[in-house]
Amino acid sequence: MRLALDAMGGDFAPHVVVQGALNAARTGAFEVALVGQRAVLEPLLAVHRPLPPNLHVEDAPDLVAMDDHPSAAVRQKPRSSIGVGIGLVKTGAADAFVSAGNTGAVMAFGLLSLGRVPGVERPALTSVFPTVNGRCLILDVGANADCRASQLLQFGVMGSAYMQSALGVTNPRVGLLSIGEEATKGNQLTLEAHQLLKQSGLNFIGNVEGKDIPVGVADVVVTDGFSGNVAIKVAEGVSEAVVGLIRGAVMSRWYFQVAAAVLRPAFRSVAKRLDYAEYGGAPLLGVRGVVIIGHGRSNARAIERALEVAAQAVEGRVVDTIARSMAAVPAPAAIPTLEPS
Amino acid sequence: MRLALDAMGGDFAPHVVVQGALNAARTGAFEVALVGQRAVLEPLLAVHRPLPPNLHVEDAPDLVAMDDHPSAAVRQKPRSSIGVGIGLVKTGAADAFVSAGNTGAVMAFGLLSLGRVPGVERPALTSVFPTVNGRCLILDVGANADCRASQLLQFGVMGSAYMQSALGVTNPRVGLLSIGEEATKGNQLTLEAHQLLKQSGLNFIGNVEGKDIPVGVADVVVTDGFSGNVAIKVAEGVSEAVVGLIRGAVMSRWYFQVAAAVLRPAFRSVAKRLDYAEYGGAPLLGVRGVVIIGHGRSNARAIERALEVAAQAVEGRVVDTIARSMAAVPAPAAIPTLEPS
Repeated sequence: MRLALDAMGGDFAPHVVVQGALNAARTGAFEVALVGQRAVLEPLLAVHRPLPPNLHVEDAPDLVAMDDHPSAAVRQKPRSSIGVGIGLVKTGAADAFVSAGNTGAVMAFGLLSLGRVPGVERPALTSVFPTVNGRCLILDVGANADCRASQLLQFGVMGSAYMQSALGVTNPRVGLLSIGEEATKGNQLTLEAHQLLKQSGLNFIGNVEGKDIPVGVADVVVTDGFSGNVAIKVAEGVSEAVVGLIRGAVMSRWYFQVAAAVLRPAFRSVAKRLDYAEYGGAPLLGVRGVVIIGHGRSNARAIERALEVAAQAVEGRVVDTIARSMAAVPAPAAIPTLEPS
Repeated sequence: MRLALDAMGGDFAPHVVVQGALNAARTGAFEVALVGQRAVLEPLLAVHRPLPPNLHVEDAPDLVAMDDHPSAAVRQKPRSSIGVGIGLVKTGAADAFVSAGNTGAVMAFGLLSLGRVPGVERPALTSVFPTVNGRCLILDVGANADCRASQLLQFGVMGSAYMQSALGVTNPRVGLLSIGEEATKGNQLTLEAHQLLKQSGLNFIGNVEGKDIPVGVADVVVTDGFSGNVAIKVAEGVSEAVVGLIRGAVMSRWYFQVAAAVLRPAFRSVAKRLDYAEYGGAPLLGVRGVVIIGHGRSNARAIERALEVAAQAVEGRVVDTIARSMAAVPAPAAIPTLEPS
């Protein structure tokens, strides 16, 4: 198995990406193609010689910045790490592409170059949400700010297929994010989507509320990209704020600090549960290829985990599974071709 | 000043409501009318004799359950604690109504009996969101699952007027909840609302993201009732999950437990910052009267604080301030009369 990795993507690239790639290559049962500017990467790698034999550099002279407009990147920077990396997946030279870079650009290159799985209206960005007893996949988290009910149904199908084939979750529980548990609660979109999901053959557990997600009631939470983005960002902000408040309170007295030192291993185990780096990345679902998107703030550990997530998705034959699942879903009324925003 | 309090509303009513009313009446500079079934309330009060002279019972024989349908409650239970309490505000016998009961029913009675402030399309439910350096008001949080941009503008106007007049925040910073800071990021609703808010004369700081709310970048966060409800419920779920994870980790070793005992005051100060009870309640904005809605799980402390919040709103002449502010806003194209859901 060969994984293409965007060496130039992420807030701390390329240094942490190189480090993560080295760690993964030394332990993983896969090849890593480090895609980026060779002139930048070679000196960084030089200090780590001897390099693992399953790691090599794939040159990509263009650079996509974190704030480049996606469609401009696609037009003007085809030889960027994202363009070249996705290209490797398209030609079959790589089995998956992993990036912590410009999400919109990854999506745009993915859509343009790999295309969609038949029947998929729009690919979905996903996020792994830590829960008290595990994790759940939430989608969409920002690729589709305005959705139709048929898209939410497809998100359920794709999310379920991913959890089953890549992460080995049997009969994944699919919930619809809404503002009340009853089928009659929600907005026009969720009222309609609820009916579609109920008839879908998925293990649909009905509406779930925002407070249910961290409790772990569902393996897959389906929502439009606006609400999904709000949900993951509120979660991120609140967990950081709570941890920050505790840190502040603990530092306010010397004897608190002593006690906190004793508790450090306990705090660490909690921090690890909440750490996005442990989840590495989440898939872009609906394109014809495995594409894993990492957090912009990815550290070396997150990059390493994202490569492992990609390997799981390849092994689980996620794209085939989604294609089979989509074929079993009634076709939506119309499939407009939309450009990524 | 006279505050009507729903004695029968909330998960732990009437006991905690009676306790909260007694505490508030003993310290507050206002009269409390405890509205509910006299036969139930009198025995509960009897054990607390002598009763403070500024507390009395207002009989309301009907009972609205937490899961009663709002419009059915309005039709069938006019003599409920909610119906009678709102009626006291309408006739001027009370200056405000406070309830931790069935939110939909409070809204339905409020709309029907008090009516809307001129120009307000739909009243908004609000919530006080604790931030690392204070609090912010978020609206709507569930009354209006589908919104038009003109409503979001009105939420900004009403939220700003409330924060200024009731809580004394000078020139409140109003943010629009979206999925990117740029004006071009969001869904169709927020793109349109952004333009309206920009031209509104409010202290509009632009789009805010979910992660910004706990950081305290805005005093008022405007959003549709679906996303707002998702935001507050995710926040509630995540902060409970984080606290639960820490508690679990700390209880796993005896020496952790010893250290945690030392840290108890620090943990308590954090818990207090996050405790909804300290915020008491949040206003239903846009009806012609002060209506404060408390959390269904309100304890006595939350009821006491909700009465104080009501007193602040009355003193600040919130309804007049909103009416003045609304009059300064261009009228929306059409004002349909919608029933509360």
